[in-house]
Amino acid sequence: MNSNKKMGIFTHGGDSEEFAQKIGCEIDEVIDLSSNINFVRPSIDIDFNRLSISAYPSYTKLYSAIAKRYGVDKESVELFNGGSSAIFSLFRFLDLESYTLYAPMYLEYKKSALLRGYKITYIDRFSNINDPIEAGSFVIFVNPATPDGKYYNIDSLMKEWMAKECTILIDESFLDFTPFESAIRYLEEYDKLYILKSMTKFYGSAGIRIGTLLSQAQNISAIKSREPLWKISQFDSAYIMASLEDTKFNNRSQKENKKSKEKLIAMLKESRYIKKIYPSDANFILVQLNSITAQEFQELLMPYKIMIRDCSNFDGLDNSFVRIAIKDKKAMDILKTCIDKI
Amino acid sequence: MNSNKKMGIFTHGGDSEEFAQKIGCEIDEVIDLSSNINFVRPSIDIDFNRLSISAYPSYTKLYSAIAKRYGVDKESVELFNGGSSAIFSLFRFLDLESYTLYAPMYLEYKKSALLRGYKITYIDRFSNINDPIEAGSFVIFVNPATPDGKYYNIDSLMKEWMAKECTILIDESFLDFTPFESAIRYLEEYDKLYILKSMTKFYGSAGIRIGTLLSQAQNISAIKSREPLWKISQFDSAYIMASLEDTKFNNRSQKENKKSKEKLIAMLKESRYIKKIYPSDANFILVQLNSITAQEFQELLMPYKIMIRDCSNFDGLDNSFVRIAIKDKKAMDILKTCIDKI
Repeated sequence: MNSNKKMGIFTHGGDSEEFAQKIGCEIDEVIDLSSNINFVRPSIDIDFNRLSISAYPSYTKLYSAIAKRYGVDKESVELFNGGSSAIFSLFRFLDLESYTLYAPMYLEYKKSALLRGYKITYIDRFSNINDPIEAGSFVIFVNPATPDGKYYNIDSLMKEWMAKECTILIDESFLDFTPFESAIRYLEEYDKLYILKSMTKFYGSAGIRIGTLLSQAQNISAIKSREPLWKISQFDSAYIMASLEDTKFNNRSQKENKKSKEKLIAMLKESRYIKKIYPSDANFILVQLNSITAQEFQELLMPYKIMIRDCSNFDGLDNSFVRIAIKDKKAMDILKTCIDKI
Repeated sequence: MNSNKKMGIFTHGGDSEEFAQKIGCEIDEVIDLSSNINFVRPSIDIDFNRLSISAYPSYTKLYSAIAKRYGVDKESVELFNGGSSAIFSLFRFLDLESYTLYAPMYLEYKKSALLRGYKITYIDRFSNINDPIEAGSFVIFVNPATPDGKYYNIDSLMKEWMAKECTILIDESFLDFTPFESAIRYLEEYDKLYILKSMTKFYGSAGIRIGTLLSQAQNISAIKSREPLWKISQFDSAYIMASLEDTKFNNRSQKENKKSKEKLIAMLKESRYIKKIYPSDANFILVQLNSITAQEFQELLMPYKIMIRDCSNFDGLDNSFVRIAIKDKKAMDILKTCIDKI
């Protein structure tokens, strides 16, 4: 395995630089519907140019703000330079040997498990979500799920997992797009529960590297002791703190995403290439194609500089699946023109 | 061990927030001579407020710029969110059981080794630098050294370490402050050599989290495969790229640091509290105090809002040692007023 980039099975969305090179245009001309970043951005009143960055950062205020946001104690929070760094650190810390993934699922989990050479069991959440689970297994559940965006009420699953003494990771990176409840309500009750919030999806900023892990204080304290003191950029810390201060953002984000989503679903329903549209609570839509492969569909969209996510490398999906992100009116209009023509 | 902060023996410099709280002033009133951040800053022409941060970052240009800066191939470079993250990742990757540290030394190394529960041998570089080394040991050498700033010509040490088939880490985080040669010249020759450059010290930006690790391509490729795809903030990436473009910065930094350093040494020579001034090639000075402890000396400076580094937690030093950073004229003048009075 030479590098992450070369691990073809883990190809991800969002590489607009490579796409721009391939089709011969500027990066900012690309309409990136392949990555799940919120197109609505918090309104932020900071002058980043005047930010003091010479001193070692102190994260006290950042931890307090994030703890407050999720209604937990500061001692239940550890921050990482992005969700993927949080996953890598948690996996190393737990050092478990048997993983149960509810597939299809965001590929970083499979990758982290494979890197450690451990056993992976897949449960197909589309057809057999109530399959029995191995006692003591490390359960990973993404809620809302990727690549389809479905939110699950996990109460009965939680009961089963806790009864089997599983270690549980709930990835809620897309939960803020929904009005639904967080698994945080189980934190006090169960000491083997971890909850991940990749802040950068909802706050529209993949270039900002902050990911939040929540668990009981003794777990967080043990994880912290294995981490370097300074992990997060002062810029990123300032960006997230300012984002959290925009109290109107959640509402505005939900409203604008809803509008664009309705538009997207309506146009997909009209297309002869779309066989099935999966119900989504998040900011992206999984579709199954009709008599065309994901690669062929991607190529049809290329002249319009539109990038979408080929989902054939997700476990349980094949090359008839693509994921399309919900973006602003302009992007949705261009996609519509294109879909109407092809 | 509850948290990094609580590990008293690893108390570091630079916590100006805590200091300000303790003495009851604003953070920006504190004169922080406890941390080793360059007071000279590159001149940067970026509008950070207009930086695009919504997409996943691509690090291609950043890797190229840093590789060019150090005269190596891109394939010999891995970047981390700060020097301490690089250390933690490298230690995990190498997974060696016997460490040889040339002490006194920057404490992150001891901490990382202790966290892994492995054997540490200290070689006192002040009195016995040529002590024989255990074959196959993991040698760590900081050059210029902390907390004294001395640059060592390591040619004969390198010969010895390579003959004993040691794995070698040279931390050159302060080398850019000197006109001296990098251990990069050994990279081609020896496949167990790693070189660390914490970019943020020289480029005056501890709030920016970028650290560079250099080694042969096959080592870097193996390390990369164990790392998450996105680690570095887009802001930080832009800051460092712009810093590297300021071609006059190295000269300017050397000139201004030299001027302040001469002033600092002159005033220390006048003080009755200073017994010994250690020769330094970096941007800080280690001094041994005369008939006063580090803590007492710190307290004398407190009314002037000056923070210095108590070095009693460095191996081989006791509570008669403090480190004082070289800062701008204004800070040095206030320190002089204070030293003249006490």
